[in-house]
Amino acid sequence: MTSKARPNVVLIGFMGAGKTSVGKALAARLDMPYLDTDEMVEARAGRSVAEVFRDEGEAGFRRREREAVREAAAKRGWVVSVGGGAVLDSENLEALKASGVLVYLRAPLEALLARVGGDPSRPLLAEKDPRELLEARRRVYEAAADLVVDGEGLEVEAVAAKVVEGLEGLGLLEAGVREVRVELGPSSYSVWVGAGILEEAEGYLPPLPGAEAATVITHPELAELFYPALQGALARAGLRPRLLTFPSGEERKSVAEAEALWREMARTGHHRKDPVVALGGGVVTDLAGFVAATYHRGVPLVNFPTTLLAQVDAAIGGKTGVNLPEGKNLVGAFWQPRAVVSDVRCLASLPEREFRSGLAEVVKAGFVADPGLLGLLRAEAARVLKREEGLMVRVVARAAAAKARVVAMDERESGRRAILNYGHTLAHALEAHASFRGLSHGEAVAIGMVFAAHLAQACGIAGVTLAQRHVEVLEALGLPTSAPLPPLEELYPFLERDKKYQEGLRFVLLARPGEPVVVSGIARPALEEALEATRARL
Amino acid sequence: MTSKARPNVVLIGFMGAGKTSVGKALAARLDMPYLDTDEMVEARAGRSVAEVFRDEGEAGFRRREREAVREAAAKRGWVVSVGGGAVLDSENLEALKASGVLVYLRAPLEALLARVGGDPSRPLLAEKDPRELLEARRRVYEAAADLVVDGEGLEVEAVAAKVVEGLEGLGLLEAGVREVRVELGPSSYSVWVGAGILEEAEGYLPPLPGAEAATVITHPELAELFYPALQGALARAGLRPRLLTFPSGEERKSVAEAEALWREMARTGHHRKDPVVALGGGVVTDLAGFVAATYHRGVPLVNFPTTLLAQVDAAIGGKTGVNLPEGKNLVGAFWQPRAVVSDVRCLASLPEREFRSGLAEVVKAGFVADPGLLGLLRAEAARVLKREEGLMVRVVARAAAAKARVVAMDERESGRRAILNYGHTLAHALEAHASFRGLSHGEAVAIGMVFAAHLAQACGIAGVTLAQRHVEVLEALGLPTSAPLPPLEELYPFLERDKKYQEGLRFVLLARPGEPVVVSGIARPALEEALEATRARL
Repeated sequence: MTSKARPNVVLIGFMGAGKTSVGKALAARLDMPYLDTDEMVEARAGRSVAEVFRDEGEAGFRRREREAVREAAAKRGWVVSVGGGAVLDSENLEALKASGVLVYLRAPLEALLARVGGDPSRPLLAEKDPRELLEARRRVYEAAADLVVDGEGLEVEAVAAKVVEGLEGLGLLEAGVREVRVELGPSSYSVWVGAGILEEAEGYLPPLPGAEAATVITHPELAELFYPALQGALARAGLRPRLLTFPSGEERKSVAEAEALWREMARTGHHRKDPVVALGGGVVTDLAGFVAATYHRGVPLVNFPTTLLAQVDAAIGGKTGVNLPEGKNLVGAFWQPRAVVSDVRCLASLPEREFRSGLAEVVKAGFVADPGLLGLLRAEAARVLKREEGLMVRVVARAAAAKARVVAMDERESGRRAILNYGHTLAHALEAHASFRGLSHGEAVAIGMVFAAHLAQACGIAGVTLAQRHVEVLEALGLPTSAPLPPLEELYPFLERDKKYQEGLRFVLLARPGEPVVVSGIARPALEEALEATRARL
Repeated sequence: MTSKARPNVVLIGFMGAGKTSVGKALAARLDMPYLDTDEMVEARAGRSVAEVFRDEGEAGFRRREREAVREAAAKRGWVVSVGGGAVLDSENLEALKASGVLVYLRAPLEALLARVGGDPSRPLLAEKDPRELLEARRRVYEAAADLVVDGEGLEVEAVAAKVVEGLEGLGLLEAGVREVRVELGPSSYSVWVGAGILEEAEGYLPPLPGAEAATVITHPELAELFYPALQGALARAGLRPRLLTFPSGEERKSVAEAEALWREMARTGHHRKDPVVALGGGVVTDLAGFVAATYHRGVPLVNFPTTLLAQVDAAIGGKTGVNLPEGKNLVGAFWQPRAVVSDVRCLASLPEREFRSGLAEVVKAGFVADPGLLGLLRAEAARVLKREEGLMVRVVARAAAAKARVVAMDERESGRRAILNYGHTLAHALEAHASFRGLSHGEAVAIGMVFAAHLAQACGIAGVTLAQRHVEVLEALGLPTSAPLPPLEELYPFLERDKKYQEGLRFVLLARPGEPVVVSGIARPALEEALEATRARL
C-alpha cells in the first residue's frame, strides 16, 4: 500500500537568508517538526561548523553534511533547513527533492553581504570572493526550487506566511495528509488525517496479510453517506466488502447488538484474518472495536471515525466496549486498531452541536498535553467553527497526536492515561444527574474543565489565570463555561459513582496547561468553592 | 503469600559415591530438573575442575563453588549434586538446607578409594591422605543429612529407588506441590499442582494489589463440593468471597450466560482490581475467563480447574470464550490467568468416563511435547486409573509443563501453538457428525490421534511403530483406538468445517513422538488409507 505521508518542506538558499528562523516559524505554522542539517553536523561533531571547517577542511564538512542530508531526506513531514552549499552536491539535491518540496528563500545579494559580512562562523565567506560565490549558487537554487519566496524587508513570521501561501498556491499543502504515529511497540499504528481520504482509503490501509474480505460496521444513515466510497476503496485494496449496520443511539452500544454482529459475521464467513472496519462515531468505534477484539479471539480492526469526538478521541487508543444496564462501558477490551483513517470532510455532515461537543475534547487534549493547540484554537476559532478543511486537518492531527502521546505512555490505563479524564469527573456526574439530561457530552466536559480549573485554584495548585484561559478558549468555540450546578451534597453521590472512583474522589487537575496532576483526598471546602465559581447565575 | 514450591533434593557425599549418575536417575523419577555444582563451575570457568585447582588453587575453586551453590540453593524443585567438599563450608551448608532436603549417598571407604584411586581429575586425592580426608568428612555428611542411603553394590536405578522410598518414608515427598511456570514475559504465571491444595489456596494466590473481593464463578454442584474450602482460603487471603453459579452444560457457554455474569458482577460491585476465580472444568474456565477478560476491559483471573481436561489443558494458556449458535468458541479473548491452582484431589469426584476423557489430552501432551510422559502413563496405567494422588500430581504437572512450553512459544496461536490440535481435526469432525454424538471429547481425540498416526504413516512421514505406540498407551488407559468411521466423502464436509481450516485441510502429524509437523494438502488416497486403518470392524 502506498504511504501518503506529508512531504518535507526543504528550505534552501544563501547563508544569512534566514533559513533557520523562517524554518522554525514555518514548522510552527504547519505543525511539522523542524531540523537543520548544519545543527545536525554540529551535534554529531561536537563542534561548530566553523571548527569542523578548520579541523577537517571543506571536504570533511561536506562528508558530514551529506550524512545529515541523507538522514533528513529519509523523513517525511518535516521542515528541513539545509546549509547554503548542500544542494550544490547532486546526490544531496536528488535526495532532498525526492523527500518533498524545495523552497528557495531569496534575498538581494547586497543585503546578504551586509548581514553575514564579518561573521567568522560562516567559513566559506572568509576564504572566497562572496559575490562570485553567491552568483554561482543563485542559479543552482533557482533551478532546483519548487517555490521561490522573496523575504527581504519582511519579518520572519511574514516570510513564513508567504511560504505557506506559496505552497498552498501550488497545491502542495492541500493534498497534505498528516500521519500521527501511536507508538505501542509491535502494536504501533498510524492515524491518517486528511480531507477526502476516505475516497482513496486503499492508500491508508495497514498490511493485512491473509485478509480476503472486510466487514464494515456502521449506522444505516452513515452507510448512505460514506459506504459507496469506502466500498470502492476496499475493493481496490483486494478486500471483498460486506456491510453490517445497526441503528444509531447510545442505547445500541449493548451486548445484544454485539451478539447480533458476531452472529452475522459468523454467518457471512468472516475469517480470522479479515478486518473489521468501523465507520462512524464513538458508539460505532466502541462497539465494532469490541466485536473485533472478541470475534475469533480477535481480528484486525481499522477505524474510520466520522465525528470530531471519534477522530480526536474514541477511535485512538484501543479502548472498546459496550454498556450494561448497570453502567456505561462496563464490558470491553483493550484492542488497538491497525490504522485510523480520519477524513475531516466527514465532519461537514455533523450537526452543529455535535461538532462543538467534539471541540470540547480537542480543548481537553490541548490543556492536558498540547498547550500550543489552545493558541491555534483561539486564534482561528471562527475558521474552526466553519470547519475549514485545511485547518481541521491541523486541529485533528494535533489533538490526535496529543492523545497518541498519552496512550503511548500507558496503553492499559494503569496510571498516566487517567489524565485523559480531565474534566470528566464532574462531566460524568452531570450526565448522570436528572437535571442535566439536556447537556451533550462535550458541553458537560467543557463545564467540567472549568470546574477543574477553579478546583486547581482552590487547592492552591494553579493560579487565577488558568480558569480564565479555559473560559476564553471555550467561549471562543461556543461551548458553555458554567451551569446552574446543584449544591455539593446533591452532586456528591454522582461524583462518587464515577467509574474511576478509587480510594476516595480523584480529580485530574492542572498546575498549568500541559501539566496535569492526579489529586485525591480534596477537602469539601475546596470542592464547594470551585462549584460556586462554576455555578451560573440564573 | 507463602510459596509452596517443592523442595530441592540435594545429594551430598564423597567424590566417587555416584552422586551424578544417581542424581540424574532420581531427577527422572521425581520429574524434577537436575544440576551439578561441579558442572556449573566447569561451565563458568570453561575448564575442568582439575584445571581450576591447578590454575587457581583450592581457594579459587571454593570461591567458584560457593557461587554455584548459591545459585542452586536459590532454586526450588531441583535435584542438585554438590561436590564432596561443598558442605564443609557452613555458609554453603546453610543455604542448601534452606533450599530443601539433604541426602547423603554413603559408600564404604575402601570401595571409594578403589573407585577414584588414580583419577587425576579428582584433585584433592592427589594431594592429601585420602583415608584421613574421608573420615573427617563422613562425620560432617552424617550430621548434615536428612536422609542417609547406602548404595554400595546396587545399580544406579536401585539407589535412586531407595532415595525416593526414603524421602517418601520421611514424608518429604508426599507434601510435594509442583510449580510449573508459563513463561510469557510480564504475563508469566505459575501452575501449582498438588493434592489438597485447594483447602490451603491462600498459599498459592498470585499478588493481587488493590484487590478487596473475589468473585468465584462455578456450577452449583461444584460449589457444594469445593466452595466452603475455597471461601475460607480466600477470606484468609483478605479477599471478600462472592459466589456466582450457573448451570453446567456446554450449551451454557453462551453470550447470554456471560451477560448474566457481567451484570451480576456490576450489581455486587466487583471492582477492576478484584479477581475472578474460575472453579470448574473447561466450560467454567472458558466462560469465566472470557468474563474476566472483558469486565471493566479486563480484571485479574485465577483458575482452579477441577477436571483433568481443565488441569492439563483448558485452564492453561489464556484461551477463553463462548459459543455462538453458528459455532463453538467463535467469541472470546486471549486472557492469561495470574495463577492456576490444580488440586488433583478434585479429580476423585469425576465420573469415570470424564476422567478417561481427560487422559486423552494427557496422552496428546505426551505425543506432542513430552514422550517421556507416555512411558510413565504406560508403566503406571493401573495406578493412574485409580487416580493415586501422588502419581496424578506427577502426571498433571508433566502434562501442564508440556502445554506451558508450547504456549510460551506462541501465546496467540499464530503458528506453533497449532500443534496442540493434534488429533483434533478428525475429533471435531466426529463431534459434528450425527452418528458420533455419543463420543466424549477425549474419546474423539483418542480416535483422532490414532487416525493422525496412520495418516503420518500413509504420507511417509512416520514409520509403522507410531500407530502401535498410540494404540498401546491409549488401550492401557481404557480409551478407544478405533471407530466405525464413515467413508471419506461423508466425513469430508465435517473436516472442512473445522475452525482451523485455512488454505485447504491441515493436519498436525508426528514424525515421531515429540516431533510434530503441520501438514497441508494431503491427497485423498492417504486420507482414505488412514481412515481404513482406524475403522473398527463391527
